[in-house]
Amino acid sequence: MKALVVFAHQDAHSYNRARLETAVAALEGAGHEVAVSDLYAMGFEAAAGRGDFATLNEPDAYKFESEQGNAYKQGRFAAGLAAEQEKLARADFVLLQFPFWWFSLPAILKGWVDRVFVPGLAYASGARYDTGLLAGRRGMLSLTTASPEADFRGADCLHGDIDGLLHHINHGMLRYAGFDVLPPVIAWDVHDAGDAARKGYLEDLRTRLETIETAEPIAY
Amino acid sequence: MKALVVFAHQDAHSYNRARLETAVAALEGAGHEVAVSDLYAMGFEAAAGRGDFATLNEPDAYKFESEQGNAYKQGRFAAGLAAEQEKLARADFVLLQFPFWWFSLPAILKGWVDRVFVPGLAYASGARYDTGLLAGRRGMLSLTTASPEADFRGADCLHGDIDGLLHHINHGMLRYAGFDVLPPVIAWDVHDAGDAARKGYLEDLRTRLETIETAEPIAY
Repeated sequence: MKALVVFAHQDAHSYNRARLETAVAALEGAGHEVAVSDLYAMGFEAAAGRGDFATLNEPDAYKFESEQGNAYKQGRFAAGLAAEQEKLARADFVLLQFPFWWFSLPAILKGWVDRVFVPGLAYASGARYDTGLLAGRRGMLSLTTASPEADFRGADCLHGDIDGLLHHINHGMLRYAGFDVLPPVIAWDVHDAGDAARKGYLEDLRTRLETIETAEPIAY
Repeated sequence: MKALVVFAHQDAHSYNRARLETAVAALEGAGHEVAVSDLYAMGFEAAAGRGDFATLNEPDAYKFESEQGNAYKQGRFAAGLAAEQEKLARADFVLLQFPFWWFSLPAILKGWVDRVFVPGLAYASGARYDTGLLAGRRGMLSLTTASPEADFRGADCLHGDIDGLLHHINHGMLRYAGFDVLPPVIAWDVHDAGDAARKGYLEDLRTRLETIETAEPIAY
């Protein structure tokens, strides 16, 4: 498969970067062709806006949503953004690797979704969820938390159930665009878990990436 | 009260901007002191990182989370970011005005949370949710959607229940920091709703802002 790993951590020595390296090695080792979008290293612009477009249809009455609506089919996205969109278009499997900041994507990765999942590529009128334009592709979240698993499991847990918290990403972003969404792979409490647990979580990630072609997606 | 309105839309003539203007007029009309963070106009940086800090404690072994942990009490945040944090620290009421992009905050507003809700200001070890450091303040979401309300209400609706979709913001961000969270005020289907409905939604917003001191917060 053609795999795309989208990575959102800025530190050269972060545990998230170790997970990126583990993922790339595992995917390449299984014979997949791997592309990486290292968003911080690329200086990826997070904020959607006028800069998304190489040319505007209505420069004097600019409206973001109107301009975005047909820019993909008209080839009007700015070069750097268009390159990201083409990486997504080519990918059979997309892995998002990120720290779970404020129970969602870090802003730079949310911006990647805001700017790359555009009409005509990810969805269209009447083409969402089961019929999203990326139907048939597979997607998976790989995230790290700063709290232990017990804070995310069971009734009355501190933060709320992890599946519910991830729903706006798994269903609202990936499934909306048509992806079959594989269950997330999570490294819990990474600041305090200790080296042995962190290594175990890398092994979990490696193992999960061995079955991306056959694993059962989340049922919606 | 001291109110802070955080605004995340880039277009000069957007309906979101009309909502910003309505909110500011309503709050000022009720005698509140109003500050605005117009994130696009400010060129607010969305991506948390090294630029958040004026000085680093460990420049040779930089780790974002470690640097962020004590930067507030040590006064080490970069000037522009520190100014935003002080606006939050002064506010008794915070209104987030945004388009509901991909069932979450636009990246520039997520970045405001990532970079402004810092340890020592919004939370601390053992000081989260009921005991979050901003306890006693009130917060509210004001959002616009591109889909009709029926897609967000009831079993088997297209996108899923709106309260569930907003939970990672209302509970995971505002409540985490201690806010009493007022029910959201929502303008549905704003591209297709028509002028009369859009004006009605402005009136809803104005009305809701009349009761921010007395309205019952969401029960958690």
